[in-house]
Amino acid sequence: QDRSRGRCLCADKGANIVLVKNIKKVEIIPPSASCERQEIIVTLKNGAGRKCLNPESKFTKNIILKALEKQILPRAGFPQPRF
Amino acid sequence: QDRSRGRCLCADKGANIVLVKNIKKVEIIPPSASCERQEIIVTLKNGAGRKCLNPESKFTKNIILKALEKQILPRAGFPQPRF
Repeated sequence: QDRSRGRCLCADKGANIVLVKNIKKVEIIPPSASCERQEIIVTLKNGAGRKCLNPESKFTKNIILKALEKQILPRAGFPQPRF
Repeated sequence: QDRSRGRCLCADKGANIVLVKNIKKVEIIPPSASCERQEIIVTLKNGAGRKCLNPESKFTKNIILKALEKQILPRAGFPQPRF
């Protein structure tokens, strides 16, 4: 039996890709006593539910890195407020 | 009035730092029609609630990058399962 599954939220390794424009929220859940794997779960727009993303996929790493970069590079024509 | 606040979840720019060992979950919420700012919210362990993290702080970027790296560099003495 796969002991790493434990009380994880994701039943398997998850999707390698989702449409970025459909992402409402990304959750990163570090390994813990209840699940020894890191889990990454996206909530989709328009009530389309939640989906596990494969934390090892290039796509997953890239969307998260892009989200972080947006804080450095403001979106074109829509300047980031400066606090 | 600060139009960027909209229906954002975070009232202000958020904390620059939290104790990593207290983090249960990190949520990244991209800019949307209801809130034009990206928001990063951590859920703390032991029912200690949720806290907004400043998406522009070095700390925030680093904990997320570290979480992603863990997928590449397995934790010492606790090998990552290979699917």
